[in-house]
Amino acid sequence: MTDPFALASALPVPIAVERRDSSRSLGQNGSLANGESGELLGSSPTGRSPSRRLQRMSSSLREQLDVKGPVAPYQALPVQGPIEDAPAANLPIMEPNGMPAEEFEARINKVLADYKQKLAERTSHHMGYPYNLDFEYGALDGLQKFSINNLGDPFIASNYGVHSREFEVGVLHWFARLWEIDQDEYWGYITNCGTEGNLHGILVGRENLPDGVLYASKDSHYSVFKAARMYRMQAVQVATLKTGEIDCADLKVHLLRNKGKPAILNVNIGTTVKGAVDDLDQVLDILKETGYTEDRFFIHCDGALFGLMVPFVKRAPLVTFEKPIGSVSVSGHKFVGAPVPCGVVITRTRYVEALANSIEYLNSRDATIMGSRNGHAPIYLWYTLTRKGYEGMRQDVERCLLNAHLLKAMLSWLGIKTMLNELSSTVVFERPTSEIFVRKWQLACQGDIAHVVVMPNITITKVLEFVQDLILQRRGCSEETARRAAKEALDFAEAHVQSLD
Amino acid sequence: MTDPFALASALPVPIAVERRDSSRSLGQNGSLANGESGELLGSSPTGRSPSRRLQRMSSSLREQLDVKGPVAPYQALPVQGPIEDAPAANLPIMEPNGMPAEEFEARINKVLADYKQKLAERTSHHMGYPYNLDFEYGALDGLQKFSINNLGDPFIASNYGVHSREFEVGVLHWFARLWEIDQDEYWGYITNCGTEGNLHGILVGRENLPDGVLYASKDSHYSVFKAARMYRMQAVQVATLKTGEIDCADLKVHLLRNKGKPAILNVNIGTTVKGAVDDLDQVLDILKETGYTEDRFFIHCDGALFGLMVPFVKRAPLVTFEKPIGSVSVSGHKFVGAPVPCGVVITRTRYVEALANSIEYLNSRDATIMGSRNGHAPIYLWYTLTRKGYEGMRQDVERCLLNAHLLKAMLSWLGIKTMLNELSSTVVFERPTSEIFVRKWQLACQGDIAHVVVMPNITITKVLEFVQDLILQRRGCSEETARRAAKEALDFAEAHVQSLD
Repeated sequence: MTDPFALASALPVPIAVERRDSSRSLGQNGSLANGESGELLGSSPTGRSPSRRLQRMSSSLREQLDVKGPVAPYQALPVQGPIEDAPAANLPIMEPNGMPAEEFEARINKVLADYKQKLAERTSHHMGYPYNLDFEYGALDGLQKFSINNLGDPFIASNYGVHSREFEVGVLHWFARLWEIDQDEYWGYITNCGTEGNLHGILVGRENLPDGVLYASKDSHYSVFKAARMYRMQAVQVATLKTGEIDCADLKVHLLRNKGKPAILNVNIGTTVKGAVDDLDQVLDILKETGYTEDRFFIHCDGALFGLMVPFVKRAPLVTFEKPIGSVSVSGHKFVGAPVPCGVVITRTRYVEALANSIEYLNSRDATIMGSRNGHAPIYLWYTLTRKGYEGMRQDVERCLLNAHLLKAMLSWLGIKTMLNELSSTVVFERPTSEIFVRKWQLACQGDIAHVVVMPNITITKVLEFVQDLILQRRGCSEETARRAAKEALDFAEAHVQSLD
Repeated sequence: MTDPFALASALPVPIAVERRDSSRSLGQNGSLANGESGELLGSSPTGRSPSRRLQRMSSSLREQLDVKGPVAPYQALPVQGPIEDAPAANLPIMEPNGMPAEEFEARINKVLADYKQKLAERTSHHMGYPYNLDFEYGALDGLQKFSINNLGDPFIASNYGVHSREFEVGVLHWFARLWEIDQDEYWGYITNCGTEGNLHGILVGRENLPDGVLYASKDSHYSVFKAARMYRMQAVQVATLKTGEIDCADLKVHLLRNKGKPAILNVNIGTTVKGAVDDLDQVLDILKETGYTEDRFFIHCDGALFGLMVPFVKRAPLVTFEKPIGSVSVSGHKFVGAPVPCGVVITRTRYVEALANSIEYLNSRDATIMGSRNGHAPIYLWYTLTRKGYEGMRQDVERCLLNAHLLKAMLSWLGIKTMLNELSSTVVFERPTSEIFVRKWQLACQGDIAHVVVMPNITITKVLEFVQDLILQRRGCSEETARRAAKEALDFAEAHVQSLD
């Protein structure tokens, strides 16, 4: 991971930073000096262990937050380094063992009641993962009684009747329209998650260009390189700019070096950590310059994070099938929001036909990665897209970007180094030194940086609460002081961000 | 697909068949002559198109059953042959377009109400797929409000708090105990479906034995050969016996032929179509005989269908990690029953370590196939296993096997050729000629055979209703006559099956 502060300083910083915490210093190479002022920040010099003040916090909070060691693994990336410190809890299957039925029942109900309470608390203190936790599917109550399964191809009727193909096809057509491809020219399905979309896109690429080399920036989601490994493909990790975008100059060098082989490219529409959007148009230009004709490359756009936001952002480079791309994938539980992870992958019919036909042992169409497929997911997506419509989605995107800018300005005002890519709602900032704080707000951390991904559930009230808590943790001040400081930060941010309009 | 009647005649038929339909004849090669007696059966000589009688059936039933063409694709297998006849329906995302809010709301609610009604009807007429549709998760109401996601490794705590790792680990430990492997010697996770379990098991095999050849019987689930294709592995399709079991003599020939390379074997604990259980012990003997030492083979047991039933069946060859197997997978939405497809895969820690370490580009642990993972699935499994316990599961298995035997006897009594493997609850029989009947009962058909997989929701009442309807369709008799005949068949079956005890 590159040093985040080097990144931040390389970016234009439109918001004047009034440092409150002048005791903090940057190291020679621009990295944060170990520890922050103990007086002000209430954390130990190691920058990881909870401070004495935090250690004095109620043990029930520690327990509730599941803090067993100093590590809060960010599970949107594979855990790095030693993992012994963070074993997951275990709730054994209970056996009645002669217990009276009512007592057994009561014990089960207690487990579930406690768990629901924990979920509610964890849902209300969540900033780190790109999941929209604000959804309302009450109208769908009752569907959990049914084993809804869209096994197989969404476009082929199934005689298993408890399916939701009609919703799935409706959702797919909506995405096809969004990404500008005709109904009879695309194929796609609703996946289990962003990873499945990437596994599918890259597989379709490989089946069309069997000796293709996979190119992806080092900030790509780990599933991209996992795919290369699974599929036994030659893969090239391309450098990134400080923003997290693919370094097109480096890409060009690699493309020229492997010119004898076709290219399969993963283009990020929002990287995992920095929310960077690769420049699709520039990638296409480079392919042209280096002599790759359209039959010799395949582009998969990993839009897991921002694939659904970018179409609504002014000035964003358009992801569209009117350009020579091969596939696009997006997550459904992120910006849309759903109880279960899900996603969408869309590709061109002519590409997926190659995939289906290439399975020689069957004269058949088996083009999804999974067999049985969650039939509830399409209904969630159908319902939200219908309720919100294009216009509702646009408003959500606008609000997320605004709130992201406000959060960035507030953090800057507090003297915290931040970074926010232009097309993104991922606010990157210094990793808070308090592990309990990181755990409480479920911040996604990698190395010295943390990020907050502003999704529709991150309202300005939530932002204010978060910043207030951050001040409390950093300064060890009174709640009232923290509240006032957070309000001041927000006033500053609102004035400033509005003035940017 | 081998001819099913050849299969049936090769099997011991313990139940005397009193033929009611003496006009039906078998072809020279043992296959069913085209068409059955029109008088008795009410179907056209093509054996596929709906008869005139059926064509006169209310068009609303046809519509409700989604009968658009002569094909009722069995989606537990990839669709074979042309698929143009069976396009899935499409329910477009609605846009209000200036419609008053109440009217828009009412339209959405109408769609959902109609859909729930369809699901209820389809759930009540279901016999073909191996899904237990009889579950009661009312105690879990309210969980759909939460975006429960077990992203990453189940055994490593996550700072994303809205997860259900404690339930997942509890369920995994239960399965580890079932398959006799110590808690510190296994690794596993809850998958999205049986396919993911196979993809994982075979990938772990390949990562441990990179030049291993994959062996699987031709009756294996299609995902096994899909894995070979995806992973660029050499794969050998082994012949099967008429029961559907792997032909160990053929396996031996292939193993000897490729002796220079390690072997990765898929062993079926219940094949998709015939419910056949491969003889694990014999496979192990053959590996020994042919000189494959334990470091030169990896066995994945695909227990998607019967992996959870076999442990409770007397005389079944035990699937256990006390034997030198590498991994076992099972589906959760099949025998256990759940609203969403899910499954479990368990392997040895030492094998998965090889997998995790082999991802050179990350010093990390990324051992699941998917990234984000459905956190509701473990709770369903935890809840059912806790409520039923080992003893409840055993009783379910017993009842399923009994009902399968009763159904087989009833069909035999009606003069319908059937087959039922000893360890299985999959009743294989002649494909009914009425497409509407097939569609109504969601029968799984392949070629000339159909099957019913008796799961816990297939009660004897349901069996009786099904047989009565089958008589009605075949004979065109009155409902009363059909009801009486079905009752007679059941009396016969009960007397006979009891006498087998």
